[in-house]
Amino acid sequence: MEQRVSLITLGVRDMDRTARFYEDLGWQRVESPDGVIAFDLIGQTLGLYPLEALAEEIGVPIDELGRGAITLAHNVRQKEDVDALISAAETAGAIIFKKPCDVFWGGYHGYFADPEGHIWEVAHNPFSPLSTDGEFRWNGYQTETKS
Amino acid sequence: MEQRVSLITLGVRDMDRTARFYEDLGWQRVESPDGVIAFDLIGQTLGLYPLEALAEEIGVPIDELGRGAITLAHNVRQKEDVDALISAAETAGAIIFKKPCDVFWGGYHGYFADPEGHIWEVAHNPFSPLSTDGEFRWNGYQTETKS
Repeated sequence: MEQRVSLITLGVRDMDRTARFYEDLGWQRVESPDGVIAFDLIGQTLGLYPLEALAEEIGVPIDELGRGAITLAHNVRQKEDVDALISAAETAGAIIFKKPCDVFWGGYHGYFADPEGHIWEVAHNPFSPLSTDGEFRWNGYQTETKS
Repeated sequence: MEQRVSLITLGVRDMDRTARFYEDLGWQRVESPDGVIAFDLIGQTLGLYPLEALAEEIGVPIDELGRGAITLAHNVRQKEDVDALISAAETAGAIIFKKPCDVFWGGYHGYFADPEGHIWEVAHNPFSPLSTDGEFRWNGYQTETKS
């Protein structure tokens, strides 16, 4: 596991109100599909996601997410890296919430919690490739191509 | 507020066990004082901090931090920026947990929660200057000097 967090996801009940809060502080959204609000930070994205949908996606009751629900995501470069990392996390003592599986948006992911309950998503997102250094941006780093 | 998270702090009951978990996954610590375990990520640091101490520092009961307690920190360049941002957050609808004050380690900080309860620390740390782009590293970015 490289030392980086690709996404910080805040589970929220009122998306618009929360988005307005961060916008009032000067943040600007990037384009994202309905149901997600995304702010690109330095080499990572902070996303707002409906609390119920987040709990459902992870497969835990909402109460499990606690007050001010946050999950951290670590994106990997290849689909098979998801399996490898979820497996390594289990060996290291993680609780596996969701075994690796295909996701409706076209990616592949799983969820684990560290021994103290902090929830991590491990994901491969073919639409948002990482930079060479592992930085993440909502709409991806474009691979430079030469014509 | 610039679009960045300087520190992700995980509040934990067992520091050694949690540190070992991340080390088992391949992460390497950076030097840090007793009572804190720090991993430098990309332009930010993930820190482990005792749950009780974290709750005490913020001034909230441990239960307020919830399961898998996490706080996000936004470090600023100058002490007075802390006051300005805490004030702006309050105007935008934040709950102020801790008004700006000097901290025992020599910095200056305050805490607020966004409308959904996600806790942010706003801090000025004179010992860990940010990079020009706002990146944070536990032991600071050295300002380049010319002799």
